[in-house]
Amino acid sequence: MNQDQLAAIDRYIDDNLPRYIADLQALCRLPSVAAQARAMEETARATAALLEEYGIAARLLPTTRFPVVHGAVAGESDKRLLCYNHYDVQPAEPLELWHSDPFEPEVRDGKLYGRGVGDDKGHILCRLAAIDALKAITGGLPCGVVFLIEGEEEIGSGSLDAHIAEHRDLYAADGCLWEFGGVDYDDRPQIYAGMRGDLYVELRVRTAERDAHSGLGGSIFPNAAWRLTWALATLKDAEERILIPGWYDDVRPAGVRDRELLEALPSDEERLRTTYGIREFLLGVSGLEFKRRAIFEPTCTISGIGAGYQGPGSKTVLPCEAMAKVDFRLVPNQRADDLLEKLKSHLVAEGFGDIEVLQHGGYNAARVDPDHPFVRMVADTGWEVYDRPAVIHPTSGGSGPMDAFVKHLGVPIANVGIGYPDSGAHAPNEHIRLVDFARGAKQTARVMLRMADL
Amino acid sequence: MNQDQLAAIDRYIDDNLPRYIADLQALCRLPSVAAQARAMEETARATAALLEEYGIAARLLPTTRFPVVHGAVAGESDKRLLCYNHYDVQPAEPLELWHSDPFEPEVRDGKLYGRGVGDDKGHILCRLAAIDALKAITGGLPCGVVFLIEGEEEIGSGSLDAHIAEHRDLYAADGCLWEFGGVDYDDRPQIYAGMRGDLYVELRVRTAERDAHSGLGGSIFPNAAWRLTWALATLKDAEERILIPGWYDDVRPAGVRDRELLEALPSDEERLRTTYGIREFLLGVSGLEFKRRAIFEPTCTISGIGAGYQGPGSKTVLPCEAMAKVDFRLVPNQRADDLLEKLKSHLVAEGFGDIEVLQHGGYNAARVDPDHPFVRMVADTGWEVYDRPAVIHPTSGGSGPMDAFVKHLGVPIANVGIGYPDSGAHAPNEHIRLVDFARGAKQTARVMLRMADL
Repeated sequence: MNQDQLAAIDRYIDDNLPRYIADLQALCRLPSVAAQARAMEETARATAALLEEYGIAARLLPTTRFPVVHGAVAGESDKRLLCYNHYDVQPAEPLELWHSDPFEPEVRDGKLYGRGVGDDKGHILCRLAAIDALKAITGGLPCGVVFLIEGEEEIGSGSLDAHIAEHRDLYAADGCLWEFGGVDYDDRPQIYAGMRGDLYVELRVRTAERDAHSGLGGSIFPNAAWRLTWALATLKDAEERILIPGWYDDVRPAGVRDRELLEALPSDEERLRTTYGIREFLLGVSGLEFKRRAIFEPTCTISGIGAGYQGPGSKTVLPCEAMAKVDFRLVPNQRADDLLEKLKSHLVAEGFGDIEVLQHGGYNAARVDPDHPFVRMVADTGWEVYDRPAVIHPTSGGSGPMDAFVKHLGVPIANVGIGYPDSGAHAPNEHIRLVDFARGAKQTARVMLRMADL
Repeated sequence: MNQDQLAAIDRYIDDNLPRYIADLQALCRLPSVAAQARAMEETARATAALLEEYGIAARLLPTTRFPVVHGAVAGESDKRLLCYNHYDVQPAEPLELWHSDPFEPEVRDGKLYGRGVGDDKGHILCRLAAIDALKAITGGLPCGVVFLIEGEEEIGSGSLDAHIAEHRDLYAADGCLWEFGGVDYDDRPQIYAGMRGDLYVELRVRTAERDAHSGLGGSIFPNAAWRLTWALATLKDAEERILIPGWYDDVRPAGVRDRELLEALPSDEERLRTTYGIREFLLGVSGLEFKRRAIFEPTCTISGIGAGYQGPGSKTVLPCEAMAKVDFRLVPNQRADDLLEKLKSHLVAEGFGDIEVLQHGGYNAARVDPDHPFVRMVADTGWEVYDRPAVIHPTSGGSGPMDAFVKHLGVPIANVGIGYPDSGAHAPNEHIRLVDFARGAKQTARVMLRMADL
């Protein structure tokens, strides 16, 4: 591949950007919120149809929940690139904070706004744009490409482990592009050699069959909101230490190579502070310890809590039910199923056997060798496109079903994508910059071109 | 007054019940939720117009918030009865639990359902029905009647103390019928020789300018829901002890006369257990201690709490703001303003100076002499109407602005009313039994007849 051809591919992507964005907008109009089971089958079918439009043989593979979209297209070499993506999205709430309809994606000021434009439908289109450009300019594909597009990523990928285990041959590949990627505040492409695990639970408690007047019941009736508050307070103390017995038992701390990678990471502290309007980070950490904590520390986050009256002013009510959503991030070697049992035992031991624990998701943590040739190749293509060396994180602070790919496929994994730090993934006004979309597609095309040389 | 005339009054009330209920329904169609500032002026005007229809000179007296409806009608004796009521109501939320529109009151099965039918608009109509019947049968009123109908009872009666202090002469009276009353599960009329005080606060905390992804911020960003959970956990322990320093300093415990009254109180334990579906009362108390705790114990009730994602399934978000509504009931001698300062100091001392404290209401506790002749007379009329002796509670577990009446007017206070334990005051499907309305009006008429003999 000479520089002229690369330039032609880049130009083709730029020229056809409006078409890719229009396809992305159409896909994002489908409100495929997995947590709310909205439009899931419809979106799976639309995703398969979209793959077919781009010349990829696609079909739906059933799971016990939402189907997986499988796609495959042959290439000129026997090397295969696996693209892992998902067609489900996070809930759009709180709706009142969106400046435009989350499911009517809209371009404003060089950015596309809408739920799923970045996480993760934009990444599906990014892969398709690369394939489209390669075929248009070179007449074919330099490697085979396989798609695994699931519909449960935002709710814990409950079906994925069994699906991959069952279809090992279908997904065998020489490298895998993960579902997300992009640049940091300084436009440096980011690679994550692993992900934290995740255990997401809902705690529910009911203390009576109906709410009572707080003047009647205040000193004699159990109060669900108090039960939940006290139970939560036993999970983590104000020094951020998780108090559940055995929680840290299996933690594998960061090693020497991790530390090298951590030290090489640019600092995002000031920019995160500005973006989120935070006066001080937790425990006042900064520097290397800030970087270490951000990705190597188990977390216990209250993602939501609700009970009783939340409207304006006062209502003198004593609530009979209360709910909290708690998101635990796991570090390497922690196992979600083990920790779920530890959580349940802890609640019982602390006298909170009345608190019901519902699991909404669980991933184990996963690691990839940051020095694998595939990972290095992806990093190199990043440097070409972004004119800056890629930043290699020893693991991501975020979570995903990476463990299933590592365990069943043994495939090396790296990131190429269209995100940037203010994309607002999972938040109101999620968006992508169109320029990032184009660069992500260009890098994806380069990765496909280099697969044959691996 | 002979028995024939009393019988004629009772018959008149029964015969005209549909008219009184129709007037009550009209008043309840106005959604005068003080906490939400809905239809307040309109309801004040409608209440004054209603009084005028029943022959009572009425006008609106301005306050700094919602107007007071003042009404006065002369009687044949120089004795005056003060009727304290309120035209505001509690919020109707959660709306989905109502079986009919809370603001379209509907009669089903001998009961009238709607927000405010009992608390407190039904009590306004109960007084008017008594006046109507007395005038129809006796051609006049045996005593003067003064109305004080405020619009802020459900939000803490913020304007009332100053209003009464300013208009002492307007409200001077020989006895006061409180805004609520009614029977227990065994149809015994209830009298409350006092009320607990109340301090209702909203705790708010904001830790950042926007929500974050819990995978990004979990171990490095402050979390508003955690701040609030930890702060709440410092307020009360699982043994129901309020942990704020000095909270119990001024508590005047129940005395010997209180104990006599407590011992004479019938036990509601089993029926409360059934009505609310409660397995065990707080701390497993029962008997005399149950009765004592229910009304002589300071409380700290979480009436509402909210942060982050509360929808179905999971959302991996780290919330930047959180809110709780906390209702403290005060016992005799505790002062709301003093306790508010103690709460604020406590939060700062515990490291929660970032938690904002907004006050939504505050009453001091109040006591009335349970052996005052007016109170005894009201109790006697209860026995006549209900064929059961009245139950005299040393104080109510609930709260109200009774302190202002005791302090500024020195008036004895008792209860006559239309409620029963399952009325659902402050809850969905609030209702009254029509038979209770009629009996409340009949007892009110008897109280007016006996005023001259006080």
